[in-house]
Amino acid sequence: MLPGAVKELFNVLTPGDAFARLAPYLHGPRATERVRTEDALGRVLAEDLTSPGSLPTFRRSTMDGFAVRAADTFGASEGLPAYLTVIDEVLMGRPAERDPRLGEAVRIATGGMLPDGADAVVMVEHTQDVDDSTIEVLRPVAPGEHVIQVGEDVNSGDHLLPAGHVLRPQDVGGLLALGIVDVTVAMRLRVGIISGGDEIVAPDAEPGPGQIRDVNSYTIAALVERAGHTPIRLGIVPDVYESLERVARDSLDQVDVLILSAGSSVSTRDMTAQVIASLGEPGVLVHGVSLKPGKPTILAMIGEKPVFGLPGNPVSCMVTFDLFVAPTLHKLAGRPAIDHRQSLAARLTRNVASAPGREDYFQVRVEQRDDGLWAEPIFGKSNLIYTLVKADGMVRIDLDTSGLTEGQWVQVILF
Amino acid sequence: MLPGAVKELFNVLTPGDAFARLAPYLHGPRATERVRTEDALGRVLAEDLTSPGSLPTFRRSTMDGFAVRAADTFGASEGLPAYLTVIDEVLMGRPAERDPRLGEAVRIATGGMLPDGADAVVMVEHTQDVDDSTIEVLRPVAPGEHVIQVGEDVNSGDHLLPAGHVLRPQDVGGLLALGIVDVTVAMRLRVGIISGGDEIVAPDAEPGPGQIRDVNSYTIAALVERAGHTPIRLGIVPDVYESLERVARDSLDQVDVLILSAGSSVSTRDMTAQVIASLGEPGVLVHGVSLKPGKPTILAMIGEKPVFGLPGNPVSCMVTFDLFVAPTLHKLAGRPAIDHRQSLAARLTRNVASAPGREDYFQVRVEQRDDGLWAEPIFGKSNLIYTLVKADGMVRIDLDTSGLTEGQWVQVILF
Repeated sequence: MLPGAVKELFNVLTPGDAFARLAPYLHGPRATERVRTEDALGRVLAEDLTSPGSLPTFRRSTMDGFAVRAADTFGASEGLPAYLTVIDEVLMGRPAERDPRLGEAVRIATGGMLPDGADAVVMVEHTQDVDDSTIEVLRPVAPGEHVIQVGEDVNSGDHLLPAGHVLRPQDVGGLLALGIVDVTVAMRLRVGIISGGDEIVAPDAEPGPGQIRDVNSYTIAALVERAGHTPIRLGIVPDVYESLERVARDSLDQVDVLILSAGSSVSTRDMTAQVIASLGEPGVLVHGVSLKPGKPTILAMIGEKPVFGLPGNPVSCMVTFDLFVAPTLHKLAGRPAIDHRQSLAARLTRNVASAPGREDYFQVRVEQRDDGLWAEPIFGKSNLIYTLVKADGMVRIDLDTSGLTEGQWVQVILF
Repeated sequence: MLPGAVKELFNVLTPGDAFARLAPYLHGPRATERVRTEDALGRVLAEDLTSPGSLPTFRRSTMDGFAVRAADTFGASEGLPAYLTVIDEVLMGRPAERDPRLGEAVRIATGGMLPDGADAVVMVEHTQDVDDSTIEVLRPVAPGEHVIQVGEDVNSGDHLLPAGHVLRPQDVGGLLALGIVDVTVAMRLRVGIISGGDEIVAPDAEPGPGQIRDVNSYTIAALVERAGHTPIRLGIVPDVYESLERVARDSLDQVDVLILSAGSSVSTRDMTAQVIASLGEPGVLVHGVSLKPGKPTILAMIGEKPVFGLPGNPVSCMVTFDLFVAPTLHKLAGRPAIDHRQSLAARLTRNVASAPGREDYFQVRVEQRDDGLWAEPIFGKSNLIYTLVKADGMVRIDLDTSGLTEGQWVQVILF
């Protein structure tokens, strides 16, 4: 037994080391396209954007009130108000027609354009009407008070957003505010998915004895879609070398990334690795990862295209997609891998044991309790799709850790 | 000044109280449709789903090895192995043709269907070949070991997913595994957006003096899209009562929810409230919320349809969308309001002051440091769209709190 055990020890990589073998081949974005900014929500920006102008382009009032020369209000109080003559009103969307001189004020609404002569706005609540054209100012304002200066939001030439940024609603609004009506974004990647296995039938078929419905290719397709890319399901292929090899080879031309959802037996995994190796260079980079669930994962590059052999068990499949495929898609789209939105901190409801020397992942359900978020482990064999359905996310146990304890804070990777 | 101040004190509601006035009118889902499960990612389930069958439908092996009667292996060890005769092999996707009797084994791969006579699987690693048809078993297995029992994943009649659940990739896979190829989901809501203001021009126009480009209707449209619904931008309408009233009335028939992105001045806000009130009953429920930014928010119901008047400032607009519109859309779609994915815990990098008696929201950028996540406040007037662009989310300061301190844990609502 010893030679085999030693061989395994040296050949099986940590998930981090495994991805590090693939990462040097991944550069992005692979291809870009120009889209309308208003249609670009969720797309990955493929250019560094700087501001073509200033915002606002004119001094704006932030209050309803009167545009004044601040000096006219110095020392004003309810007991000793400043008297100002209202000479005009600023209409929204229009420049002021008359500039206030000493002792004069111009009525202005929130968002209105400050007349040239004014340098501050007195809130209407701090004034009283004396007659049709005279107001009392009851409090002083400082120069610049209740005014947004030209370029205070953003200045011409300012850095707006970096390439790789995933566009959010406020980014769409911010770019349109500056008249940036088109942006260059990474093309969505075409991700081919082949479902392998003699036992697999389509979801609308009635499985016979020993048969199961295809789960993984639809789960993977949805994961690809959620990552912002385009899944292409390439059908169910029997566990015959020539069939798998032909479908894989034909598909590779049509896609940017190819995923083979392989069976779980050693023989089908080995066959999948051989098929992938036959497709071209550099070929299989990783075959087997020190990871539970997900050990029999294959990472490969065929020319410029990443090819994955993911384990057939649904839980292994989803864990390895998150660990290897998702960061690959991010890199190929030119997007940074870290996304705060994908994880949260919670406390464990119970102890969880783990074998050291292997990264373990287990599923949890997240519960909001009075004292914060708690993560309740859901245990189940990695063949069980409903452990995933019951779970909100997964927790990692590091390679060098023998377990986690009840009450310990853990990071839940949401899925 | 006193009567006005007192009036305001009594009339302005907390955000929670404000939404509580609207909530009793909101029931969902309003309308449902039947879609293919494979196309249902992100949709809101509108039926409680129970399992039409068991999963798996047959006993499956979780290992490559031999299906045996466990009793045959009791007491087996490397020194004293059990000898078994291999009588057959289970082919994937097929039933076993022969059942093992005492002293017999059937070769089986991971995922294979257990023959009737077997009750456990011996891993191939724990066996040694003696000759073509005989193996040594080096370790005992218990009954049920390395076997998934019928219904172990899910049983016929089990509760699968509740109405209101937002479908994730693993849910799509899990439903298809059971042959559930169609599901009933909430219809996407049509959300009309009217941009009001004499100063507003389209993003592709060059603003003149005093004019600004439309930011809010595009930001709101993207927020609606991200919430899973269908935005319908109804154009820019000048601040003229008759114009706004006509567009609002005409639009109401075509949409499920109407949002007026109003100007920020008191007069346009009052006009917006009057227009909404004129549309029908019960009319305006809330006009003004004890909230910064976002005080001049209008919540209304016209017949069955929620109508919102959101403040014109981009930051106020986004905060009030999150506080009032998003939960309204969730309720109308029949979805629970809580989503762990939308917030994270981080520590504040500095003190933040607040006026008690008002809910304050401020924007933060989230930073990953060696010791965890930190939230760096971004201060800016609520008229500045780029405070939103620079931010990852916002933090609430409660009504009865006078501020937050450096190092304090806060919940960041991501946007």
